[in-house]
Amino acid sequence: MKNLIPALDWIQNYKKEYLTGDLTAGLTVGVMLIPQGMAYSMLAGLPPIYGLYASTIPLIIYALFGTSRQLAVGPVAMVALLISSGVGALATIGSNEFIALAILLALMVGVIQFAMGIFKLGFLVNFLSHPVIAGFTSAAAIIIGFSQLKHLLGFNIPRGKVHEIILNVIENFGSINVPTLLIGAGAIALLLIIKSINKKIPGPLLAVLFGIGAVYFLGLHEQGVKIVKDVPGGLDIFGIPSIDLTSVTSLIPVALTIAFIGFMESIAVAKAIQAKHKDYEVTANKELIGLGLANIIGSFFKAFPVTGGFSRTAVNDQAGARTGLSSIISAVLIIFTLLFLTEYFYFLPNAILAAIIMVAVFGLIDIKEAKHLLKNDRGDFYLFLITAIGTLTLGIESGILLGVVLSIALVIYKVSYPHVAVLGNVPGTDEFRNIRRFADLETYEDKLILRFDAQLYFANSNYFKDFVISSIHKNPRISHVILDARAVSSIDSSAIHMLHDLIIDLKNQNIALHIVEAIGPLRDKFKKNGITDLMGKEQFHLSIQHAVASIDNGELIDNPVYALQTN
Amino acid sequence: MKNLIPALDWIQNYKKEYLTGDLTAGLTVGVMLIPQGMAYSMLAGLPPIYGLYASTIPLIIYALFGTSRQLAVGPVAMVALLISSGVGALATIGSNEFIALAILLALMVGVIQFAMGIFKLGFLVNFLSHPVIAGFTSAAAIIIGFSQLKHLLGFNIPRGKVHEIILNVIENFGSINVPTLLIGAGAIALLLIIKSINKKIPGPLLAVLFGIGAVYFLGLHEQGVKIVKDVPGGLDIFGIPSIDLTSVTSLIPVALTIAFIGFMESIAVAKAIQAKHKDYEVTANKELIGLGLANIIGSFFKAFPVTGGFSRTAVNDQAGARTGLSSIISAVLIIFTLLFLTEYFYFLPNAILAAIIMVAVFGLIDIKEAKHLLKNDRGDFYLFLITAIGTLTLGIESGILLGVVLSIALVIYKVSYPHVAVLGNVPGTDEFRNIRRFADLETYEDKLILRFDAQLYFANSNYFKDFVISSIHKNPRISHVILDARAVSSIDSSAIHMLHDLIIDLKNQNIALHIVEAIGPLRDKFKKNGITDLMGKEQFHLSIQHAVASIDNGELIDNPVYALQTN
Repeated sequence: MKNLIPALDWIQNYKKEYLTGDLTAGLTVGVMLIPQGMAYSMLAGLPPIYGLYASTIPLIIYALFGTSRQLAVGPVAMVALLISSGVGALATIGSNEFIALAILLALMVGVIQFAMGIFKLGFLVNFLSHPVIAGFTSAAAIIIGFSQLKHLLGFNIPRGKVHEIILNVIENFGSINVPTLLIGAGAIALLLIIKSINKKIPGPLLAVLFGIGAVYFLGLHEQGVKIVKDVPGGLDIFGIPSIDLTSVTSLIPVALTIAFIGFMESIAVAKAIQAKHKDYEVTANKELIGLGLANIIGSFFKAFPVTGGFSRTAVNDQAGARTGLSSIISAVLIIFTLLFLTEYFYFLPNAILAAIIMVAVFGLIDIKEAKHLLKNDRGDFYLFLITAIGTLTLGIESGILLGVVLSIALVIYKVSYPHVAVLGNVPGTDEFRNIRRFADLETYEDKLILRFDAQLYFANSNYFKDFVISSIHKNPRISHVILDARAVSSIDSSAIHMLHDLIIDLKNQNIALHIVEAIGPLRDKFKKNGITDLMGKEQFHLSIQHAVASIDNGELIDNPVYALQTN
Repeated sequence: MKNLIPALDWIQNYKKEYLTGDLTAGLTVGVMLIPQGMAYSMLAGLPPIYGLYASTIPLIIYALFGTSRQLAVGPVAMVALLISSGVGALATIGSNEFIALAILLALMVGVIQFAMGIFKLGFLVNFLSHPVIAGFTSAAAIIIGFSQLKHLLGFNIPRGKVHEIILNVIENFGSINVPTLLIGAGAIALLLIIKSINKKIPGPLLAVLFGIGAVYFLGLHEQGVKIVKDVPGGLDIFGIPSIDLTSVTSLIPVALTIAFIGFMESIAVAKAIQAKHKDYEVTANKELIGLGLANIIGSFFKAFPVTGGFSRTAVNDQAGARTGLSSIISAVLIIFTLLFLTEYFYFLPNAILAAIIMVAVFGLIDIKEAKHLLKNDRGDFYLFLITAIGTLTLGIESGILLGVVLSIALVIYKVSYPHVAVLGNVPGTDEFRNIRRFADLETYEDKLILRFDAQLYFANSNYFKDFVISSIHKNPRISHVILDARAVSSIDSSAIHMLHDLIIDLKNQNIALHIVEAIGPLRDKFKKNGITDLMGKEQFHLSIQHAVASIDNGELIDNPVYALQTN
């Protein structure tokens, strides 16, 4: 039961002293969520109120089914950007059709994440490398920042690439609405100052109050400052997502992207926070199930796709959250807002929401990491740069696709060329070491001794064969190849095929293959697949020195260590 | 120079005794190529003559720029099937537009292969696992076989899935043209019998003669047996492929598929044959360049995509080919045929070409491998089965895509969960072994000793961290973690980040991380990235016993082996 509903664990063991922390943290995050939810909803291309909808039911569902106790689920900038670019290709931003598609998208993202969790596919997120993620995130932050310029400057700029937006601003410099710019710039300054003083002060809320006050008292909405106007309140939010096959088919790519990117952001912060708390564990597959359910059930309550956010989770933790109760309290605060407070947002200027978004995302531009990579890891630096430039110039979806392709190519490259060492004997001992790392090792004219530092499978079996064959080519006097298989933890059918062919090739050249230190499961595979019979039982040895001795004079050395081997 | 044109090597060192072999082999393969080229052209959806065009210039170009000396390049069944399904989606089979697209496709396949070779991306073919290839090939062979049924039965069957074809045949059983069936079945019997007697006898040529003779003397074409009729001869084959952006864009997926699949078939057989010959080397990237040039230049001479074929290469080698001259001789024989012999093919029945295709591909259905996997490697068997069933039911492109996705997922799975061993001391020795493989090892209450059997990088760094943290969770008395890094051949920036966070996490729990047996390049990375300073220099040890001794009593043991370490 606790396996299905992880929350039961903290509910049953709830301690009174948790309550203060959970209450403080829940209220703090809730207060952050009101402006952030509205801002990210605007970024996603939906009316602000949908950001509040997405901050209710999904939070409660995650609190029950998620494994992290501090993760603050809800609207986040990156996912909002992906919604806007993905759904924006299919419907007009802000239209009823757009809203319906965004909600359907939440359902699809949820189903994908849930299914990935059930089928234990959480490991798939491992394939995006850190530089690719950093490059993509930095570029996406720049794109998000520039997409908000129109709200900050107070005139319409069509959606487009970053350089197009810059050109547009230069050309239409005269169209800037000064009151809008002043209020936006003021809010940015306010947010930055508060951030530098104390991260627990709810800067966005103060910025919202500042903006509403300025418009209300100075009548700025009559001077061209755009305001959010009517925010429909109430809790009439239940509704079945409208599903049709055409929409589902066209949303699949963006749903997959959000399911992956959203989960990656979430699991990274969940694990970072969990490391500080010893009272629970976070597992990738259960997190997928928790986030998946939050999105699935959320989509029946008008929520667009959500995930665990970085900054709000950090605040939640620092404010003292100990259990999922904190998130439930945040959700209750949002529900309270929906019921009683929406009318007060009438005079809220869009520029304030844009300022909140900009300050939130510019922290994501990882210049420090870029500099560090440039100095310490040139290859990873180029990976960072290519992904970032690709995302900026090709767009957000092509950017992430480029990152995925680069990462997969890199994985395949890495696994295709595993580490192989040619070994030599340390004179006067039974030790064998890599001849490229140790000086004065003794090698043998007739023996090639190799250590293969990986499991043998389809991705690297060609390389292994090529390595053996080219080593023999270099030294035609070799008549024995000794493979130290201690690191070969497993072997698949492709590698068995390769080994079979290699043994026959070697035999035709009167070269014998010896295998030493093979573990039990490997020896079983060799037996089952006829490799043992093909090589001859006597070609398997306990250690390199056994193999060398038995080749040189048929003598076997007893080694007490191997008497202990169980499999 | 020899690097650019590998053929210069054999041209400069040509020995007189090679000539007999090259001549015999070249003529034998040429004689096979005439009927096979025409048959595969029909399979690809082009008039038979285009199979002869594809058997001229590409062979000569490959002989000059390829690295294998026995590889018989030309039309092959699998690529023909991919052309038919890929181009068939864009134009009517056999139309002029279809032909133009097939030739443009050759240019694109060539450019992709050439670019892959230049950028040294040959390793990318490693990611398709053996069971996936076997499953795909077996299914494709079944699809090819059934696609020829219409020629064998003598009535029109629309293209479709295998089960649709079977249903169609059952429904239209009465439409079977008996003379066509008899001549086709006779040819199949003839081919199988000849194959079982001696593989060097040119069965397809005899079948062609049998077919032409039967039609000519019995007047079967007047009884409904379809014949190829006019085969336009001559060498008027030069022409620039018609390139337009729309066609190029829509051909990209099939071009990528053929570039990959074609190369994989080719490199596999080239390497298998090379292993028997010691006088040259085959390298993947140079092969890509050679095949790429063959396709690029071929496309200016009306050739559709070609690659190295399995059966003809085997015949070429067995018949005594020593150098690329053999292929040039084959091409010359085809050119001679184009100039003088095409009129003799007038009475050749389509059923004969269908019989040649069927006999060639049914050998590719790998039931033996399926049985072997079922018995010895259940996981790989399912991979075989899923790819085969996917290809049969979803179609050829979706099938290969499924195989690619499965293979990549498998690679990521494998690299995400590398082998980690918890080590214990062999009592009375300095040796440390895996506690799961050796009995009665001594472990320490306060020390966790791990050996990580892979390089550390983004794909497995999460797993490493999770493993360390969950091991500590299980035993709260641990205050030292000793990492045996002997198999950690490299570390990337993602793993450096992980290690950095892990060390801080551990420090917060008063647990010290020790690293032993780290190689030079790894220690350099640690130093450059601040890991050394973070851990403290004294936490690096030469061996596990050094680490244990220094933890227990601050004492260091001298080990003569390590004095030899150079980097």
